[in-house]
Amino acid sequence: MITKERKELLNELMEVLGYKFKDLELLNLAFVHRSYLNECKDATISNERLEFLGDVILGFIVSVELYEQFPNSDEGYLTKIRSKVVCEESFSYAARTFNLGKYLLLGKGEDSFGGRNRNSILADTFEALFGALYLDGGMDVVTEIANKYFFDTVVYKIDKNIFIKDYKSYLQEYFHKNATTKISYTLIAERGPDHDKEFDMCVNIDDVVKGYGTGKNKKQAEQQAARDALIKSGAISE
Amino acid sequence: MITKERKELLNELMEVLGYKFKDLELLNLAFVHRSYLNECKDATISNERLEFLGDVILGFIVSVELYEQFPNSDEGYLTKIRSKVVCEESFSYAARTFNLGKYLLLGKGEDSFGGRNRNSILADTFEALFGALYLDGGMDVVTEIANKYFFDTVVYKIDKNIFIKDYKSYLQEYFHKNATTKISYTLIAERGPDHDKEFDMCVNIDDVVKGYGTGKNKKQAEQQAARDALIKSGAISE
Repeated sequence: MITKERKELLNELMEVLGYKFKDLELLNLAFVHRSYLNECKDATISNERLEFLGDVILGFIVSVELYEQFPNSDEGYLTKIRSKVVCEESFSYAARTFNLGKYLLLGKGEDSFGGRNRNSILADTFEALFGALYLDGGMDVVTEIANKYFFDTVVYKIDKNIFIKDYKSYLQEYFHKNATTKISYTLIAERGPDHDKEFDMCVNIDDVVKGYGTGKNKKQAEQQAARDALIKSGAISE
Repeated sequence: MITKERKELLNELMEVLGYKFKDLELLNLAFVHRSYLNECKDATISNERLEFLGDVILGFIVSVELYEQFPNSDEGYLTKIRSKVVCEESFSYAARTFNLGKYLLLGKGEDSFGGRNRNSILADTFEALFGALYLDGGMDVVTEIANKYFFDTVVYKIDKNIFIKDYKSYLQEYFHKNATTKISYTLIAERGPDHDKEFDMCVNIDDVVKGYGTGKNKKQAEQQAARDALIKSGAISE
């Protein structure tokens, strides 16, 4: 049974997530650490089964994202990047962003030894939360929340080089040390029939061509040109 | 460019799968082994990126299935079973069931050394096929095909003990050595309010109670009772 105080606390988290659980017990379960079971009779199972589920769900979402974001990278490179994203460091960082430690139900001993701020416990809880989100809301909900809170903010912050969704913005940022730097994109060529066009663009930094890109629309070609310029200038690898 | 002969071959596979690819190139790509690239100019990329994707997709689908099939098992047990299901042995077995070796595009050397029948290549191709199915048809298609061809036939065949969807059928099968054996289920108790009922059932073999089970409906309770009887009789572990 979830107390009124606990309910208010979980409501607060749902506000942050932007998702209202149909099954509040499920959200609550995501925060039940096994150390809590011995001491409190109101819980009989821990969040470890949800963690089992959340781990593969996050692995899956990250893999699909990487597959799409790096259309020209081989399997080895994708696997390398994934191991940087799907790991304790990144998940515990994400858990802190959500302030998940606050909602944890820990045994008194574990709590007094700083369990609420331990990387392993926080990372496990982050996984369990995603397991609960999947069971309650399905794949669409979990993907949306992963995109909103994990990729766009957390992963980007951990290491800009490993996971950049928006190369144009990053190029802007990278060369903006000097405020007078001028960045522009130029269309070089347009190929193919109307329903299957390809565009070649280049990016100019202070009127010097620094990168080339090809895409199915101008925006995509610009992104690839920015990426090319970032690689050539040593800002990102691969 | 896919030749007419190749197209006919892939059509045959799609018949077996019961799914028609919108993008035939994608299905074809699932069968391009890296050894093929050096020799044939009609392919520039191998199936390894699809394999990267298929691997996590199968891991995800299997995990969800296990989570649901074993509601009372802990994370450690689920992880143990998953490692038996998501592995080269099981995937290569599945690949042979689909006869995937036939559709592989291999380099001449690899082919003459028996690559078409090598476990590692077959397992990788099975993963790549599921990556392609996901990209072409989405999660619903890939889950349906995994259920139809992977869980119900392949996994069940590999080791009945590790992954039984239907304990009642298995109990029937297990005790049917003796054709006169009589198996029946009896309702013992019914608890809780209408919207949250729980049922206790027992299974009787030749009128002797052999197992007990609890569930949210009678069918579920019967399955759990059958599972209990299977464990007690040593037919399955845990």
